[in-house]
Amino acid sequence: MRRPFLLLMLAGLLSLPALAAETHDTPTPKELLAQSRPQEWRRPDPANLLDMKLPGGHVLIELAPDFTPLHAANIRTLVREHYFDGLAIVRVQDNFVTQWDDPAADDEDKAHIKPLGGAKKTLPPEYTRAIDPRLEWTPLPDGDVYAPEVGFSEGFPVARDPATGREWITHCYGTVGVARDVDPHSGNGSALYAIIGQAPRGLDRNLAVAGRVIDGMELLSALPRGPAPMGFYTDKAQRVRIESVRLAADLPPAERPRIEVLRTDSATFAKLVEAKRNRHDAFYTVPAGKIDLCSIGVPSRKE
Amino acid sequence: MRRPFLLLMLAGLLSLPALAAETHDTPTPKELLAQSRPQEWRRPDPANLLDMKLPGGHVLIELAPDFTPLHAANIRTLVREHYFDGLAIVRVQDNFVTQWDDPAADDEDKAHIKPLGGAKKTLPPEYTRAIDPRLEWTPLPDGDVYAPEVGFSEGFPVARDPATGREWITHCYGTVGVARDVDPHSGNGSALYAIIGQAPRGLDRNLAVAGRVIDGMELLSALPRGPAPMGFYTDKAQRVRIESVRLAADLPPAERPRIEVLRTDSATFAKLVEAKRNRHDAFYTVPAGKIDLCSIGVPSRKE
Repeated sequence: MRRPFLLLMLAGLLSLPALAAETHDTPTPKELLAQSRPQEWRRPDPANLLDMKLPGGHVLIELAPDFTPLHAANIRTLVREHYFDGLAIVRVQDNFVTQWDDPAADDEDKAHIKPLGGAKKTLPPEYTRAIDPRLEWTPLPDGDVYAPEVGFSEGFPVARDPATGREWITHCYGTVGVARDVDPHSGNGSALYAIIGQAPRGLDRNLAVAGRVIDGMELLSALPRGPAPMGFYTDKAQRVRIESVRLAADLPPAERPRIEVLRTDSATFAKLVEAKRNRHDAFYTVPAGKIDLCSIGVPSRKE
Repeated sequence: MRRPFLLLMLAGLLSLPALAAETHDTPTPKELLAQSRPQEWRRPDPANLLDMKLPGGHVLIELAPDFTPLHAANIRTLVREHYFDGLAIVRVQDNFVTQWDDPAADDEDKAHIKPLGGAKKTLPPEYTRAIDPRLEWTPLPDGDVYAPEVGFSEGFPVARDPATGREWITHCYGTVGVARDVDPHSGNGSALYAIIGQAPRGLDRNLAVAGRVIDGMELLSALPRGPAPMGFYTDKAQRVRIESVRLAADLPPAERPRIEVLRTDSATFAKLVEAKRNRHDAFYTVPAGKIDLCSIGVPSRKE
């Protein structure tokens, strides 16, 4: 009784089938993952896997070249030229975004702004793409406030509009977007943000989505919020230095991050979604019977 | 160009009407708040206003006695007996909750568990209440994945089901809930949590909601995540000590927090919701035309 709320998810930590059978009718997410088959997991393509090293550890980001190919290519160029090394997290706005870019752009002395090297300075927006029936599509059954259809595609939370034939990655917790100026062509991937609060779905179709954080979110979400408007840090010492960003493909195989992501077209993922829609463990009085797109995390695991 | 994403909300910071007229068709939230009338703001009833003092500052919580009267009364008793003074934040789970309670309950030596004094050890659940037409009701127009109707009532995000005649405060960012054990009667207000991520709406109707954080969220949301399952801190030194929790009504008037909350039945709040639904400033290519309940923050301001 003195550790209330603990059992809310404790059932998910119990892996003994006998006990599980006693306390709930349906398997918990933890049990489902334990029962998953190896082929239901995939290793992100090293050409799409970014390893961002911060003082506190590593943030792993999977790029989404099927949705934003020009941005993925430009980010790869920036990474290969070590553009991000020594840049910083400059902005953390509560319940919104953590953003990293060239801090020199925010300082009075703009003489030290880092050049973009071989990367393009402007890019077409790539906010949406034509629906491609060849891409995986795992629809969700409960609708969405913002879009006609939502689901998962290649591990990303995606919305679709059959009327326009377009689809786009949505701004959920952990989504990594391309910061830009007012001009829609001004984004180039040199400034990126990650969503750290309630999904700001109003950003959908207004910004290019570069990918998704698949590990290390807490290194971005638990940072002190900046005191200036929009969460900018006012004291340069508050900024978090980016030690390096590397593409896994550019690392020797032995040094690549060893991480797997659950396939969103797998049977286990479908069961996870259903388990989140209808929790039947003893803690829950009323199963929701519904789930919204951004409340479903795509599991990853380190080897 | 070198401070991309900045202008996403910069338009909201510009208060010059002339410039505003040049850059967008509709007023920004910042402009709307600047134009609000004094009577559109309310001071929370001091009997419902908690002031939690942490090492980093004050978190202000407004209780919701019209929704959870027995819990509000029990929490007032606990606060008046200084129950929370010296307790701690024991758990921070990324994209979910920050929880505070008696840390002695988590330690091996349970001899030092603080007694509840005059407060009740168990309470009826109070997960939902009968819809009361006398309470303010400001409905939202865009639907909801989880409930037949959603809107705001007395400053709180609320869902309703006309079929059952019930309504309940929803688990949005900043909602403060009553932790409990499996037994629905085991919650008593001595352990509380605040939502710090994507709204976990599956908790709705399964936990009593005590109220909402109206100031100081970043003191709860930016804390280091705990390494143990469910975000519990493993090292006692990681816990954040609660210096005190006081009811504003118990403080001399001069020492009470001076904070106002925008009335959710005000014309300005309606305009804010519309401005979030359809952003017309130059940054946005496609206005969402929709807004979900938990993406609408209720503004507060300190005097």
